[in-house]
Amino acid sequence: MAKEVTNKEDNYSKWYNDLVVKADLAENSAVRGCMVIKPYGYAIWEKMKADLDRRFKETGHQNAYFPLFIPKSFFSREAEHVAGFAKECAVVTHHRLMNDPDGSGVVVDPSAKLEEELIVRPTSETIIWSTYRNWIKSWRDLPILINQWANVVRWEMRTRLFLRTSEFLWQEGHTAHATSAEAVAEAERMIQVYADFARDVLCMPVVVGRKTASERFAGALDTYCIEAMMQDGKALQAGTSHFLGQNFAKSFDVQYTDKEGKQQYVWATSWGTSTRLMGALVMVHSDGRGLVLPPALAPIQVVMVPIYKSDAERSSILERMGLLKKEIETAGLSVKIDDRDNLRPGFKFAEWELKGVPVRLAVGPRDLASGEVEMVRRDTMDKVQVPQNALALRLVELMEEIRKNMYAKALSFRDSHTYRVDSWDEFRKKIEEGGFLLCHWDGTPETEARIQELTKATIRCIPLDSFVEKEDGVDMLTGKPSHQRVIFARAY
Amino acid sequence: MAKEVTNKEDNYSKWYNDLVVKADLAENSAVRGCMVIKPYGYAIWEKMKADLDRRFKETGHQNAYFPLFIPKSFFSREAEHVAGFAKECAVVTHHRLMNDPDGSGVVVDPSAKLEEELIVRPTSETIIWSTYRNWIKSWRDLPILINQWANVVRWEMRTRLFLRTSEFLWQEGHTAHATSAEAVAEAERMIQVYADFARDVLCMPVVVGRKTASERFAGALDTYCIEAMMQDGKALQAGTSHFLGQNFAKSFDVQYTDKEGKQQYVWATSWGTSTRLMGALVMVHSDGRGLVLPPALAPIQVVMVPIYKSDAERSSILERMGLLKKEIETAGLSVKIDDRDNLRPGFKFAEWELKGVPVRLAVGPRDLASGEVEMVRRDTMDKVQVPQNALALRLVELMEEIRKNMYAKALSFRDSHTYRVDSWDEFRKKIEEGGFLLCHWDGTPETEARIQELTKATIRCIPLDSFVEKEDGVDMLTGKPSHQRVIFARAY
Repeated sequence: MAKEVTNKEDNYSKWYNDLVVKADLAENSAVRGCMVIKPYGYAIWEKMKADLDRRFKETGHQNAYFPLFIPKSFFSREAEHVAGFAKECAVVTHHRLMNDPDGSGVVVDPSAKLEEELIVRPTSETIIWSTYRNWIKSWRDLPILINQWANVVRWEMRTRLFLRTSEFLWQEGHTAHATSAEAVAEAERMIQVYADFARDVLCMPVVVGRKTASERFAGALDTYCIEAMMQDGKALQAGTSHFLGQNFAKSFDVQYTDKEGKQQYVWATSWGTSTRLMGALVMVHSDGRGLVLPPALAPIQVVMVPIYKSDAERSSILERMGLLKKEIETAGLSVKIDDRDNLRPGFKFAEWELKGVPVRLAVGPRDLASGEVEMVRRDTMDKVQVPQNALALRLVELMEEIRKNMYAKALSFRDSHTYRVDSWDEFRKKIEEGGFLLCHWDGTPETEARIQELTKATIRCIPLDSFVEKEDGVDMLTGKPSHQRVIFARAY
Repeated sequence: MAKEVTNKEDNYSKWYNDLVVKADLAENSAVRGCMVIKPYGYAIWEKMKADLDRRFKETGHQNAYFPLFIPKSFFSREAEHVAGFAKECAVVTHHRLMNDPDGSGVVVDPSAKLEEELIVRPTSETIIWSTYRNWIKSWRDLPILINQWANVVRWEMRTRLFLRTSEFLWQEGHTAHATSAEAVAEAERMIQVYADFARDVLCMPVVVGRKTASERFAGALDTYCIEAMMQDGKALQAGTSHFLGQNFAKSFDVQYTDKEGKQQYVWATSWGTSTRLMGALVMVHSDGRGLVLPPALAPIQVVMVPIYKSDAERSSILERMGLLKKEIETAGLSVKIDDRDNLRPGFKFAEWELKGVPVRLAVGPRDLASGEVEMVRRDTMDKVQVPQNALALRLVELMEEIRKNMYAKALSFRDSHTYRVDSWDEFRKKIEEGGFLLCHWDGTPETEARIQELTKATIRCIPLDSFVEKEDGVDMLTGKPSHQRVIFARAY
């Protein structure tokens, strides 16, 4: 293989990190906890962004941009919100450097201290609701449906590329509504947008659910989420959508005049997904050879590798490949011919497998003569000979087959690692093996906390869709009554 | 008019600010010097981004993302660079807040002081070259052609929406090359990309030139720029491209092994454009009625306003409009029907004029009967009746006519405000009137500084293209010899 990747079964965590770094997705930077997203990784993120952005616009949202900095006083207006974020934020205190009076280098200029410190946004509810105050006067100004693509900073002590970094890229929707019902509907609509995106584009099965009170976003009345299962059986929260009630409207005094002329506080939602999705993408589909990218997210969908011994063979094969490439591009797929002359085909094969390119085509002298190509699909590694004519059409079909197969495979993995557990003994054993445990819970934060303390498992969500049917039961730990199973798992 | 805009001739600066705010492009935020880019403004910026991004990719560049924060020690490695930016940077010193021990609110937690302060990037050369050090080993790793879309912070004392804000959005290209000649060629290629974009998309004439030594980017050996003229005769620098020599490679020890096996320092360029382009867009084309948007950047290219007295008229006109809208959208244009029932047509006309929509169509009962629409183009305000059949085709042609006319009008304005000036007396008089003054200059920073001190005029650039033919002459102030006229102007 081109680059050594740790065996997934030996060390899942190191395997993940190896893939991210060796497939050129991202790397740690010189700044603690901040990553560099490399061109190949960024190209995948751009495709995620474009697809999500289209879905947001189709559901009536517009993009805007709000300041990176939040005055400290704004930040602390919503009590739960500040409690949730104050311990992990980057604080700007000065606005100038000066030459070190003691010698070389530069130091912070003490005379350039800010009157009020600025927080680098960990999320933008406060700065946005302070702005909405000026935008909203009447019911005619509602709803406001805005999304922002931005970087945010949450000072993390233990970081992992994409999954948990001090700076990350994300989108945050912030909407304002006249009624509670409208805001709830918006929060629910957006979690469904995320679920559709995860399933259709990432080929990643997700459970749509609600968080328990203790897992809610700081300042929310209700948090909806999509939860996915990684290949080590741990859960990963891939997107959240919050019904914020009137909390931020009250903190920032945002009221509107309703049709009857009365003043009313505005209702809010916020919802977000981030570069964390890149981590999920890697963890859900990759194998011992490297990434396996869904066709819709692959920067290169088809790679062509020439097999030759002589210069004459090389040039006639590359010529034919050029013609095929044009046909395939016309069919709407992205193609790369790997014509590097200093590397052997086997090395190239390994490199493109590592990078997860959905389909590899190889053409040698015999293929040239027979009018065929060797086609290998990355998801199954199946190898077949296919005729060069109608190749483009075959590839378009194949991309859809790959998409469906990747989803089916991930779904099958999740389903085979999802268990109904009714006794505490079984829970303690099963949770060590990983997976989703569907259990009855008595609905109290005390029991939830106790289970987490004993097992490190959390309630990932109370499923909303048909993931598990409603049924009565008793809490496995306390024996108290329950009306629905929830999902327990260890999580990223 | 819908909203009162200051007269351009009375107060150009206030007129500009009024337009930006009242056309819903941007507004000042609660954070000193930082703006909120509103949905309508952001939609225009998105179109600029998409067009530039396509041009960057067509010239072989890839996007990536580097950290927001730069360690203070990196920042100071390149001496000129730190001198250029140290006085205007936001400094992060702490990573946690805590409850105020004296009572309510939150304060910075003194125990969470960073060992080394972090600078919020004002530009990313240092963090990127510290990364390139690990990416570049051999000549085979070169060139590296990377662009980043990001936010940056330069602490400004006097700010103006889009033109000068403490935080702004931009793109910054950072390329690495094996030879000086390649890097120079890249810097020149990218300034031409900017020039083409400015002319074709913004409909804004620009002069391509080189900066004098005193106006160069901090750390560059050569800075190329595009300079545009605003309607008050002042210059605006709309994009820059820097040949950085080996300065950053030496500061961060970035060397490659050449084909002969020798170690060589890498050559660099960087180039950028920012949300400042939004300011240029407003200042170049707008008039007393509001914005005039080039078709390629208009979020709404065609607005349709129904004219009616009765509900019956309204519904039959809106029905016809719906059909026309579909035809026009099929032709590739974006269309909005303004069917608000609580506003009069005249109010709507004024609002869409303020927002710069390229073409307005009105349909009343008489038009419905005659099979025509009233068509008004925003750039000239010409009003004509056009038949409803073949309307879409006519609009597509019209967009191109508007584009050409907007460019021609701006070019004519610039040319009629560009003067050859050969005497100091004339210079002192002319500079008060505004415009580009083409003058001989003796090439010394002393004369340049003296002229700036006396008149606030700077050398905008030494033109590179055929803007002014080469000729010998004498400096108007010192009488020393000169071989080329340069452009003097007051500038934003």
